[in-house]
Amino acid sequence: MRNIRLTLQYDGTNYSGWQVQASGRPTVQGTLLAVLRRIEGREVKLHAAGRTDAGVHALAQVANYFSAKHLPCDNLKRAINASLPPDIRVTDVAEVDASFHARYCAKLKTYRYTIVLSQTVSPFEYRYVYHYPYKLDTARIKEAARLMVGKHDFASFATAIDRDIDTVRTVTSIEVMSNEDRLMIEVTGDGFLRYMVRTMVGTLLEVGRSRLGLDDVVAALKSRDRSLAGETLPAQGLTLVAVHYED
Amino acid sequence: MRNIRLTLQYDGTNYSGWQVQASGRPTVQGTLLAVLRRIEGREVKLHAAGRTDAGVHALAQVANYFSAKHLPCDNLKRAINASLPPDIRVTDVAEVDASFHARYCAKLKTYRYTIVLSQTVSPFEYRYVYHYPYKLDTARIKEAARLMVGKHDFASFATAIDRDIDTVRTVTSIEVMSNEDRLMIEVTGDGFLRYMVRTMVGTLLEVGRSRLGLDDVVAALKSRDRSLAGETLPAQGLTLVAVHYED
Repeated sequence: MRNIRLTLQYDGTNYSGWQVQASGRPTVQGTLLAVLRRIEGREVKLHAAGRTDAGVHALAQVANYFSAKHLPCDNLKRAINASLPPDIRVTDVAEVDASFHARYCAKLKTYRYTIVLSQTVSPFEYRYVYHYPYKLDTARIKEAARLMVGKHDFASFATAIDRDIDTVRTVTSIEVMSNEDRLMIEVTGDGFLRYMVRTMVGTLLEVGRSRLGLDDVVAALKSRDRSLAGETLPAQGLTLVAVHYED
Repeated sequence: MRNIRLTLQYDGTNYSGWQVQASGRPTVQGTLLAVLRRIEGREVKLHAAGRTDAGVHALAQVANYFSAKHLPCDNLKRAINASLPPDIRVTDVAEVDASFHARYCAKLKTYRYTIVLSQTVSPFEYRYVYHYPYKLDTARIKEAARLMVGKHDFASFATAIDRDIDTVRTVTSIEVMSNEDRLMIEVTGDGFLRYMVRTMVGTLLEVGRSRLGLDDVVAALKSRDRSLAGETLPAQGLTLVAVHYED
């Protein structure tokens, strides 16, 4: 069997996230599995680096599965794309070592949250951004972001479901990029709890409007108390931009 | 009454073009009229520079209507955008001279057709481009485009419906911009017959693949014979990018 690594882009708007749902609602994994099953002529298992939530996009999601077919990778890529809807694309197909597992081997993942600050959002990108037409103090946002970097218990930034699991994660960097019209926040870490990035960014926006102070961020990071963090921003502004593996 | 000029962007994917349809299917004009009627509290007439076809997009459509309200333009812009769906945005509102008519005063319009030549199209832009993964001879396309510039009878590039009207139009420029992955063709002219730009670009692509020669383009421009021109490309790749008025 060949271990096949797929690199994927998708517009998450019309999907209930990555993972196959009991509800039967369309998911990215389910859509891909239907195509792979047809190509392989049997059931396959497909693992992704990040199980993105409903409405979250990906610029470079990574997934892998085992193939019994001997198609060259470029033909496989063409065959998969020919059967996928246009809002999911395979951008790269590679045969990798049998030990490679898209999720367990991922060292770091980077998510980007995009915020449009101007009065209107372009009709060509409203699906991919969050509209927040307010003046923000970017210097304060950067200071608060620096506080979040490091190994912390992120329970305050997680959903109730995740509060019983180990909620310690390491955020290795937060890049805050901004101009007059737009703010992009890229968070890189070894793992993320459900809604963690969207709640971290929601907290940073409240800091940017002086509704929360730097001390509130410190308190949220120390307290395991969801009520101390900011609101969870909508999924549409979030994109999985990169998965980092050891070479 | 104040003459109000609107500048508009829209993603045409979900609309049966600009103009209100007898069928009642959603159109950009119909969607805007419903909003303006509510703001004005009466029926209004709304004229656009270019009556874009179903599925065609706009980066800067221009329209005008007469308003009996005294709202400042910026408030009007906010009020209209608050009621419009996110795939239509008003980017500018201005009060103009009573003699201004978005369509009759337009001197030139520029349409852009965008073609993706690479193997895959991004899930974030497939709605706005035409996928044509073939090697093209761009130098030949530029030569053929130069032949189309000028005052010609464009009957060969029009639909049957338009062949009984005056089919002479002046194309003032055609810009062909390309790199390895992408070809953008911008056509500027004093007016366009239905499907004219899409058929001109379809013809240019066939020239780029050597399925048509430069002499075929000359023959099409001289003949009033639709069968001599190339195919009409899909609406999704077409965008109205600018309307030019005399200052």
